[in-house]
Amino acid sequence: MAGKKVLIVYAHQSSGSFSAAAKDAAVEVLAAQDCTVEVSDLYAMKFKATATAEDITGEVKNADHFCYAEETKLAWEEGKLCSDIMEEQRKLTQADLVIFQFPMYWFTVPAIVKGWIDRVLTLGYAHSPENRYSQGIFKDKKAMLSFTTGSPESMFSANGINGDMNVTLWPLQNGILHYCGFQVLAPQIFWAPSYVPPEARSTMLEGWRKRLQGLLGEKPLSFTPLDCFDGESYQLKPEVCEKHATKEYGLTVGIHLGKALPPNSQMKAGV
Amino acid sequence: MAGKKVLIVYAHQSSGSFSAAAKDAAVEVLAAQDCTVEVSDLYAMKFKATATAEDITGEVKNADHFCYAEETKLAWEEGKLCSDIMEEQRKLTQADLVIFQFPMYWFTVPAIVKGWIDRVLTLGYAHSPENRYSQGIFKDKKAMLSFTTGSPESMFSANGINGDMNVTLWPLQNGILHYCGFQVLAPQIFWAPSYVPPEARSTMLEGWRKRLQGLLGEKPLSFTPLDCFDGESYQLKPEVCEKHATKEYGLTVGIHLGKALPPNSQMKAGV
Repeated sequence: MAGKKVLIVYAHQSSGSFSAAAKDAAVEVLAAQDCTVEVSDLYAMKFKATATAEDITGEVKNADHFCYAEETKLAWEEGKLCSDIMEEQRKLTQADLVIFQFPMYWFTVPAIVKGWIDRVLTLGYAHSPENRYSQGIFKDKKAMLSFTTGSPESMFSANGINGDMNVTLWPLQNGILHYCGFQVLAPQIFWAPSYVPPEARSTMLEGWRKRLQGLLGEKPLSFTPLDCFDGESYQLKPEVCEKHATKEYGLTVGIHLGKALPPNSQMKAGV
Repeated sequence: MAGKKVLIVYAHQSSGSFSAAAKDAAVEVLAAQDCTVEVSDLYAMKFKATATAEDITGEVKNADHFCYAEETKLAWEEGKLCSDIMEEQRKLTQADLVIFQFPMYWFTVPAIVKGWIDRVLTLGYAHSPENRYSQGIFKDKKAMLSFTTGSPESMFSANGINGDMNVTLWPLQNGILHYCGFQVLAPQIFWAPSYVPPEARSTMLEGWRKRLQGLLGEKPLSFTPLDCFDGESYQLKPEVCEKHATKEYGLTVGIHLGKALPPNSQMKAGV
């Protein structure tokens, strides 16, 4: 992993938090392997979360019918995005791996992380109708979610009251990371660290440190490749539907899918 | 519907947008039925999206290990939340129905709406371990998502490349709205209005206006009731698993579920 570049998009308000410890462990273990690690500490940066016309320097093209995606695409093409977005895009462009480290808020990322996603993954720069999913712009990069929960693992099982964690993560892992082309590594889930004894928290961090040593060699999760879908309707091709049902596509849900891996194999790190 | 109070949590940067027109239609049709309608126009309010210690007036309890959920719970109990959160909570407390009107960004709400969720739905005020899901604090209120997409409906079908829209909405509709107890009305989805002719957009708005006339009389989506789960493990009780498989629970995914309604009946308004 020597020479690889890692970006950690980190969101916690407190340097004394478990999330901070998880971020620090990643910095330490990856740096010890001669990776270059950059951290975007969103709260410390007072990162702007909202997608507004101020994200464009100078005049917007169509103030009366302002469309954020279109306006920022043009601004990106013309080098007119505001400086904090350009700086995050510089880090992301250089990165071989992006780790999002955050406490899960309301079954997804906190607003400040969503703001990073909304503002940094600009149309044109991070995705386009021609370049998405398995043909996505970042297909040579890896990305993963690393987060704490407030609920124990059992509540997020298929029979648990919150439903299967794979379903909860689908919009993030498929709709954002895979959409941009990232090879998505299995999520690192720290189950309810606030509710376990200190030793259990240490064990969680040890597991993470161990995983980090081989992280960049892990096999990513599987998603249904773009060429399994019709190029106009974006529906699964009839001829692949059947073949498909026998394959083990990692986190595909709905019927991309037919078959899901057993929860354990999905939740744990690949090999 | 006379005398009912409606809160519209609205997020679009432009008053010339389709989202604005959808919001305006809701205000007009509901007011014509003698509903009292309040609109939280998040971008116009420059609503703060990030969950920080500044959300608490005065000293926080544990600055070294700041935990947003715990600190804001205490602040709520002591009347020390900052004024913009208290104002949104006042509106929410009074509302019989909450409509979230937004353009879908990255398979979920824009960061500014997530910020409203993260900051306004305070632990203690909006939910607690004792009061959630079908025993949730807002069980006498209704809520719904109303949004535009960038992709056509076919891409969000079960065989479509984005996967089933019901899966994409699960974290929002189950993990946030139902978690707080809201009776969740079927989502109002405006499929890719930017890519259709003006007449088709008018037809979409007409459909919405028509739906709005009977909105408060609609039957909400079904979720698996809390008492189907074991009180300690929060796993589906074995005896209900079987019975369950024969029922039509609306948006339950994973195996809460066993059986999902056909996509059409899920996506359209209830009766």
